[in-house]
Amino acid sequence: MNQWIISTIFLTMSFSKFTSEIPVRPDDIDMNNHVHFSRYLDYVLAARFEQMERDYRMSMEEFTARGLGWVVSGCTVQYKRPLVLGDVAIVKTGIVGLGTSSGKVGFEIIRKATGKLSADGIFDYTLVDIATGRAVPLTEEIIQRYSI
Amino acid sequence: MNQWIISTIFLTMSFSKFTSEIPVRPDDIDMNNHVHFSRYLDYVLAARFEQMERDYRMSMEEFTARGLGWVVSGCTVQYKRPLVLGDVAIVKTGIVGLGTSSGKVGFEIIRKATGKLSADGIFDYTLVDIATGRAVPLTEEIIQRYSI
Amino acid sequence: MNQWIISTIFLTMSFSKFTSEIPVRPDDIDMNNHVHFSRYLDYVLAARFEQMERDYRMSMEEFTARGLGWVVSGCTVQYKRPLVLGDVAIVKTGIVGLGTSSGKVGFEIIRKATGKLSADGIFDYTLVDIATGRAVPLTEEIIQRYSI
Amino acid sequence: MNQWIISTIFLTMSFSKFTSEIPVRPDDIDMNNHVHFSRYLDYVLAARFEQMERDYRMSMEEFTARGLGWVVSGCTVQYKRPLVLGDVAIVKTGIVGLGTSSGKVGFEIIRKATGKLSADGIFDYTLVDIATGRAVPLTEEIIQRYSI
Repeated sequence: MNQWIISTIFLTMSFSKFTSEIPVRPDDIDMNNHVHFSRYLDYVLAARFEQMERDYRMSMEEFTARGLGWVVSGCTVQYKRPLVLGDVAIVKTGIVGLGTSSGKVGFEIIRKATGKLSADGIFDYTLVDIATGRAVPLTEEIIQRYSI
Repeated sequence: MNQWIISTIFLTMSFSKFTSEIPVRPDDIDMNNHVHFSRYLDYVLAARFEQMERDYRMSMEEFTARGLGWVVSGCTVQYKRPLVLGDVAIVKTGIVGLGTSSGKVGFEIIRKATGKLSADGIFDYTLVDIATGRAVPLTEEIIQRYSI
Repeated sequence: MNQWIISTIFLTMSFSKFTSEIPVRPDDIDMNNHVHFSRYLDYVLAARFEQMERDYRMSMEEFTARGLGWVVSGCTVQYKRPLVLGDVAIVKTGIVGLGTSSGKVGFEIIRKATGKLSADGIFDYTLVDIATGRAVPLTEEIIQRYSI
Repeated sequence: MNQWIISTIFLTMSFSKFTSEIPVRPDDIDMNNHVHFSRYLDYVLAARFEQMERDYRMSMEEFTARGLGWVVSGCTVQYKRPLVLGDVAIVKTGIVGLGTSSGKVGFEIIRKATGKLSADGIFDYTLVDIATGRAVPLTEEIIQRYSI
């Protein structure tokens, strides 16, 4: 419970949404001729890596250099419409809450060809000390960087 | 709302849990030296395929032969402890609810070496007509097969 | 032996090389912090799909519509230098020979950041009738389309 | 050239073949309803990891502990017959030659249900110093372990 007190405060602030384009590769397609359902998670992961560097100006490598890492501690996905071979996925993500040592990232995956929603959901990230694997508190600097 | 009325009835029945063992492959390991987070979904999928045939005696191929398919319409995963190279994942799944044209499957992924929980969560499946992609109601036969 | 007689004739013609850019995704990275060795094959596959449509003007879908498909019947890869997270792979491919019912495609994967060769090799494709799975001869039209 | 002198000597010795069983997972299946062609490489990789520990009694972890690693420097695959959902792949591998700092591993992938050959080929492995990434010579001990 305590963990989300900061989050509540920050939810009154505005967090931006950022956008990445992920082209569907043939190896993403499964026996149903759609993008395999677990690959949607990989598209969100790819979008976040790009956006951390390009938009938040704090790449995963910078975290690693400080001995820190973001790990996915949970996720929820709702699948709406399939993506198919030849598609480009537009992945919009944005922080929807920050906790003591965690962040909630909302995402939408949109099929570029139609502009329609393909999937949406939430990733729960926890900031960990890479050496110990334990959760560590977000620093003021990290909170500032993410509060754009 | 309406969709879950049947489910409520069936929740008073007992649904069994079944178990599959999925060996971790080196290609499942990511840059963090753990099983990649999206591969957990693939482990659950693999377990369900095995259990549909072995335990429910109604394989995915049988559904396909009737022009039907189960598609994942949503999922939720909580990651607890990593799986690593050399591990075997014990995947326990069981129905936790049936809707008009859907089923909720709960799962636990356990690290065989320690018996500890690695991840758990829920898959939402929808029964669809393969030709049209539309949801179709569960038949009495399907409900019977799953009510073990 | 006989199969490569046409190929010998066509080798005196000039086949073009085409180029695709494949961004490395985090899920492509393995425990060695490099792009996983089998994903190189997927990069070549993705490049060929793009080039079939964009450059040869005969997409895989067009083949499918005629009941035909290209299957990989063999491949050879030499790995030279790793690709890492954040990289873009430049994939150059070109036909290096056509047989009665087959085509040899040479490829080079270049790390965009350095311009240096990451891997090269050959894919052997066979044209098959999708319904029977059997090899079928290249038509004159297919040969013309590929002879650019 | 020089590299294969040791190899020539050892080829007069007998190298054993070892066998692993890899169950096909649904996420291995691609749009052609077959095991995706690049996953064959992952099956061989998985078999080698198992066999290094179980059969050669020198696991990848032991190499890592000495600061050494085996990297795939090249591979060749011939695809013969598809593997499908529900199949188990029998992967037989064996050393076919040792060089100064390298080993050639031949493999056969057999469809358990029929006993028929699905694919075969060669992996070229190079022994490297993990810290520098450079090739290092096989020690007498490593050669002994592999000469069974």
